[in-house]
Amino acid sequence: MFDGPPKPELDPAERLARIRLARSPRIGPVSFHEALAHFGSAAAACREIPVAPEAAILREQRAIEALNGHFLVFGDPIYPDPLAQVLDAPPVLTAVGDPALLARPILAIVGARDASAAGQRFAEHLAKALGAAGFVIASGLARGIDTAAHRAALPTGTVAVVAGGADQIYPPQNAALHREIAARGLILAESSPGVAPVARAFPRRNRIVSGLARGVVVIEAAERSGSLITARRAADQGREVFVMPGSPMDARHAGSNSLIRDGAILVRDENDILSVMGLPHSTRQPVDKASRKSDNIHTAKVLEALGSTPTAVDELVRRCQVSAATVAEVLLALELEGRLERHRGNKVSLI
Amino acid sequence: MFDGPPKPELDPAERLARIRLARSPRIGPVSFHEALAHFGSAAAACREIPVAPEAAILREQRAIEALNGHFLVFGDPIYPDPLAQVLDAPPVLTAVGDPALLARPILAIVGARDASAAGQRFAEHLAKALGAAGFVIASGLARGIDTAAHRAALPTGTVAVVAGGADQIYPPQNAALHREIAARGLILAESSPGVAPVARAFPRRNRIVSGLARGVVVIEAAERSGSLITARRAADQGREVFVMPGSPMDARHAGSNSLIRDGAILVRDENDILSVMGLPHSTRQPVDKASRKSDNIHTAKVLEALGSTPTAVDELVRRCQVSAATVAEVLLALELEGRLERHRGNKVSLI
Repeated sequence: MFDGPPKPELDPAERLARIRLARSPRIGPVSFHEALAHFGSAAAACREIPVAPEAAILREQRAIEALNGHFLVFGDPIYPDPLAQVLDAPPVLTAVGDPALLARPILAIVGARDASAAGQRFAEHLAKALGAAGFVIASGLARGIDTAAHRAALPTGTVAVVAGGADQIYPPQNAALHREIAARGLILAESSPGVAPVARAFPRRNRIVSGLARGVVVIEAAERSGSLITARRAADQGREVFVMPGSPMDARHAGSNSLIRDGAILVRDENDILSVMGLPHSTRQPVDKASRKSDNIHTAKVLEALGSTPTAVDELVRRCQVSAATVAEVLLALELEGRLERHRGNKVSLI
Repeated sequence: MFDGPPKPELDPAERLARIRLARSPRIGPVSFHEALAHFGSAAAACREIPVAPEAAILREQRAIEALNGHFLVFGDPIYPDPLAQVLDAPPVLTAVGDPALLARPILAIVGARDASAAGQRFAEHLAKALGAAGFVIASGLARGIDTAAHRAALPTGTVAVVAGGADQIYPPQNAALHREIAARGLILAESSPGVAPVARAFPRRNRIVSGLARGVVVIEAAERSGSLITARRAADQGREVFVMPGSPMDARHAGSNSLIRDGAILVRDENDILSVMGLPHSTRQPVDKASRKSDNIHTAKVLEALGSTPTAVDELVRRCQVSAATVAEVLLALELEGRLERHRGNKVSLI
């Protein structure tokens, strides 16, 4: 999905035709791909149906260049493969910033605008840890979870997909973050510069966030929330959906908990994501949690004396030369870890 | 598991022999059942091995009667079937209160002693709702979750399994609750009256709580907590394990979230339990959560116009005679409920 031979550049005339087709009124992403399939190329489509005039595209290109950006066209070698495979893949995006981020594996972190402080801390923690593990973090530059994830991922790489044009600052309080991502990360916009982020653009934006990513991490998705739609669509797109669980007493988690019941992966820390994504585990300790007691000398002794054959606990105590209480403690720990089976007659064995 | 013909009373001599065997030093529950199997009856075992003298049993019986209690012996008709099927079923229990509670289906609610206020509210809510649905609530009379569950279930029926003798008040702050349960519910104790609740008695107590129950609800189980052991043992006993999810940022949920990852059932409200237990859903609204918007007239119109064949959204708008915005809203709601599929060409169908 992320490998393969280097792809050829689009023919410049076909590339321009794709932009003209995409910018035509009444041509949405699905119609664009239908037209490509029907006519064989955008160039052919432009000969048959009324499309946006070339002059308009050149005007838009100048506006994008004024932002230090460029067009990212469906078919461009750097157009991300995962996004290209989505049914309604955006035909044309504005990209402002570092397009090389698109060549790296991407994980999305999405969630509530009115997120709790704990949710924002968890988003920051995951963004840092997943960034350190090599993932670029994609999100939607909204308040709350999105903001926390972008900020934490700025040093390692972050992509913000915005609902309006790449020059549209929304929400206003994220103006500085928008500038920072444009400078150090990547801003992607399906709308042309100057287009305000209208309400219906947000679900469209969300499909791009999940479409870019190999997996989507959901933090504090209420029922009927945008994050929940993103998660369901991500699952439809074949993406892994990872979910932070939360209290059923807090409506902010209602959608999240339902996602877990429906089969999404419950996330306790970054390792629950990295293990699925096939990368080595992080060596950092999970936030706010006591570290597991490392197996100590007594555990080693008991393990040495134990096998798959049931052994009397009394015998273990004698053979290990440690106190019965210590043996009992070690056995309890092993049992909790699911490594010990108990048998009648106070015997135990390793599983 | 809960039905079948009425069981015969134990022969009084065999019943006394079982109590004598159970009260012998060095005879634990597993040894008791081994002796029963080996000798064919407790009466036969008492003829072959040194057991507690009859006089000691009569003394204990007087102590129990002074508490308005009685012996509950393995094999008694009211000895609960689910508990009898546990490998280390307690041979003898002291029962103080209403033994008829043992004939009703039981669910256990267990959790942290140092539970959060939200966890205690959730325990109360579930205990009330499950009690209203006909379940007796069992727990361990500890601080925190146990206390909340018992209190809320007092009007509908609750069983407290204590770690010491039935007359031992522990923890001290639950003295009034202990008295109330002895009067209106049922106290069960594996230890004899007068025996203090020593540390090793708590895990033994926990196996009885889960053994009595058809399912165990776990609220705020930390890693390596007693509640986590109870949950794992409940799963070994073949009981359903239901778990309240919680924030990964709060160590009180670390064990709970791991249980869900390992296959326990995530609980958002009582209906997630009742649906598994095969009882009709509660009609009460879940706590602290907005009620679902009921299907309204517009939804009905759109549903009528929709079928499994993809239909253009424009056509729906025309046929339903409602605004395009309303149709879009209804379609979004259906999509979120997983009832709608979208197709190319702005068409939709019911799933």
